[in-house]
Amino acid sequence: MSKFYGIGVGPGDSELITIKAANILKEIDILVTPQPKKDGKSLAHKIASPYLNENLEVKERHFPMNFNKEELETAWDNIASEIITDVKSGKNVGFVTLGDPMVYSTYIYILKRMIGKIDITTIPGITSFNNIAADQNFPLVEDKEALVVVPCTMDEEKIDKILKENTNLVLMKVYKNFKNIIELIRKNNLMDSAILVSNSSKGDEKVYRNLENLNEEKISYFSTILINKGWNN
Amino acid sequence: MSKFYGIGVGPGDSELITIKAANILKEIDILVTPQPKKDGKSLAHKIASPYLNENLEVKERHFPMNFNKEELETAWDNIASEIITDVKSGKNVGFVTLGDPMVYSTYIYILKRMIGKIDITTIPGITSFNNIAADQNFPLVEDKEALVVVPCTMDEEKIDKILKENTNLVLMKVYKNFKNIIELIRKNNLMDSAILVSNSSKGDEKVYRNLENLNEEKISYFSTILINKGWNN
Repeated sequence: MSKFYGIGVGPGDSELITIKAANILKEIDILVTPQPKKDGKSLAHKIASPYLNENLEVKERHFPMNFNKEELETAWDNIASEIITDVKSGKNVGFVTLGDPMVYSTYIYILKRMIGKIDITTIPGITSFNNIAADQNFPLVEDKEALVVVPCTMDEEKIDKILKENTNLVLMKVYKNFKNIIELIRKNNLMDSAILVSNSSKGDEKVYRNLENLNEEKISYFSTILINKGWNN
Repeated sequence: MSKFYGIGVGPGDSELITIKAANILKEIDILVTPQPKKDGKSLAHKIASPYLNENLEVKERHFPMNFNKEELETAWDNIASEIITDVKSGKNVGFVTLGDPMVYSTYIYILKRMIGKIDITTIPGITSFNNIAADQNFPLVEDKEALVVVPCTMDEEKIDKILKENTNLVLMKVYKNFKNIIELIRKNNLMDSAILVSNSSKGDEKVYRNLENLNEEKISYFSTILINKGWNN
């Protein structure tokens, strides 16, 4: 029976996808790739490229990168119904997504529109923060501590509270509100328990091991801060 | 130059390790595997088995599964110094660990004893909770919410507070204090936003989609609860 596969391709390096994901990429008939701009291959598509078969049909579908809810919902509706039609016509369809499909991914919005309608298999992927932690030999969490993953699009007051109450944190999406986030980290005396990594596993990585030395005004879209209050950086 | 590799082998299925991990497993000279009991292959070793080369030397080293700090520290000291000696003598040494090496892993204790002494490369792995979420098509976290990963060996009061204040949670190590954890989930009206999975990706998986239907007194060591207050299970 034909199926839909949601495939996590990991953080950037094509070798950081799972063997399972690579095998499925070889077998599918159609690959749907999310395209942030109207031209150019998506990063998820590039990561998957070494594993794709010659006869594969690639459908690059535009995902609007804005906050117009109506436009977004229409885009997701259209992509989901196109996939459902393809699977029902007997094709195995894959959808690639950066990192892990169930962690802050557009895949979730597509998935919601397909559950119960077609057969769905989701393949996990290495998240950016798991990759950064391994790459920097920086432990995320041990023992009886909680690990809190915070999108920095959240209210600043909430982020401040989370920084105070927890020992092990991952701050994602730091680019938008970057200066204020650094200020919050300074205020909480966490500058030397934190590490900032931009473009991990993407060829032009930058690592800041002590945020006191950081004098960037802006920072790359793919930037993540790890904090471990018990780790001497 | 010879190196030490800390290798995350993922949750159980040998296909859920990364291509990078599989390639490194083929190349190493010595594999150190953590052995929970004095006999029997460790699960991490079994997962890695398909990728090991014929000439590999396997060193099964006993890790005590108790809370005697002195005994634990001695075991870690011994394993770390054996690895350092082997790497300095020109061998490439690998150490396999379940899930991801930087998330609640004994690997962290070994790592701490080796940083600065030998060349170390850590390879990330799929965590049990990323795997369960993908496998069950259960989104972990979206948008502006935080994801909180909680080890249930933590104080019950703290767990209760975290359950109240957050929308997206992963509860790990639930086997020990199982009845009380279920009671906390019930008290917080989260029974139908939660899913419990035991032995995911390990051949004898059990899935409970609504915890009201759960009438187990005990639960497997490898059990995880996912909670998403915004997800209709």
